[in-house]
Amino acid sequence: MKIAEPTIERLVQYHRLLERLREEGHRVVSSQQIGELLGFKASQVRKDLSYFGEIGKRGVGYHVERLCDHIVQILSSPKIWRIAMAGIGNIGTALLSNQSFRSPKLRFEALFDIDTRKIGSEIFGVHCWDASEIPVVMAERKTEVLILAVPARAAQSCVDLAISSGVLRGVLALTQGSFVVPDEILVVRVDIPAELEKLLFFLKQPEVIPG
Amino acid sequence: MKIAEPTIERLVQYHRLLERLREEGHRVVSSQQIGELLGFKASQVRKDLSYFGEIGKRGVGYHVERLCDHIVQILSSPKIWRIAMAGIGNIGTALLSNQSFRSPKLRFEALFDIDTRKIGSEIFGVHCWDASEIPVVMAERKTEVLILAVPARAAQSCVDLAISSGVLRGVLALTQGSFVVPDEILVVRVDIPAELEKLLFFLKQPEVIPG
Repeated sequence: MKIAEPTIERLVQYHRLLERLREEGHRVVSSQQIGELLGFKASQVRKDLSYFGEIGKRGVGYHVERLCDHIVQILSSPKIWRIAMAGIGNIGTALLSNQSFRSPKLRFEALFDIDTRKIGSEIFGVHCWDASEIPVVMAERKTEVLILAVPARAAQSCVDLAISSGVLRGVLALTQGSFVVPDEILVVRVDIPAELEKLLFFLKQPEVIPG
Repeated sequence: MKIAEPTIERLVQYHRLLERLREEGHRVVSSQQIGELLGFKASQVRKDLSYFGEIGKRGVGYHVERLCDHIVQILSSPKIWRIAMAGIGNIGTALLSNQSFRSPKLRFEALFDIDTRKIGSEIFGVHCWDASEIPVVMAERKTEVLILAVPARAAQSCVDLAISSGVLRGVLALTQGSFVVPDEILVVRVDIPAELEKLLFFLKQPEVIPG
């Protein structure tokens, strides 16, 4: 089953919302409610969920727990992901301390920095190495995923070191630096200043509707 | 001229890349090069740029400086945006210290937190108030944009305070908490744990190609 990127993005958001509704003790939820809470059209919600075989009952909605379990099953991975992070500044630290990042599915195996005060220390329980050791440590620890939180100017050299480990498969890029990778390596970019610029552009031209 | 959201996102990325190429002294760039550096197809680059009247010369490409100025003009806003930020934790601090955020187009007018050690202090030169003062301070300082970096549980109450200021027009949400706003308020969400989940989903099913 092939799923397009925007659908996956919405699935991740349905998942997060349903977990919250479950915690709050809600038993049913309508497509209208889901749409309103996430900023999607109800028709989009129905279309997405029916694609995965979930049909809400008219006038009742979806069973929160069942729908949540179903989406977890679609998103979930049988394996534990071994993750490395390069650049342990404010953003890197924010992520390491974020509960959503410390799930049993994710194992932070190694941190990398060039700051000698960080190298050799444990940060939130994870060892920090000198960035020059990226190839060896990533290979030893089989970290397929790199979270890249280094300054823009270090992005390419850091990614090149990770590629040379031979185990890298995906990069979550939180840096504003651009870099090139071979086709077989997946990159997801998060560029917060660019998102702000986008918001301001929408505000400038109110006739452009996001989504 | 109406521009769809994905196009705006790419424009922001073209802008960033062209600024870098200009700084590095490049005079021309081809659609192939732009595509490779940003991970888009060259045909997409040509289509986007021709929509704005930019036609590259076959075998030569685009004039970096002219193209950059043109995109700046499309993206730029005649006004200076007055910005408030709520939640001055690691993420908030990371943004305040990020150079891309300290542009002449953006004026950080107010910070808000509930931590008494932060309230009353200046953080990166911006005053921090108690979150309960959001309505008054935002109204006084006419901050149309709120960067929301509070814990998930505080998202809705914090946004409600900002809405009650009467001046709020847009929210950049960096929190995992969901919240509801009236239709006329624009929201752009950045959810880093969700982006990681998306990357892992792609890695699990390599036949799904992002983009």
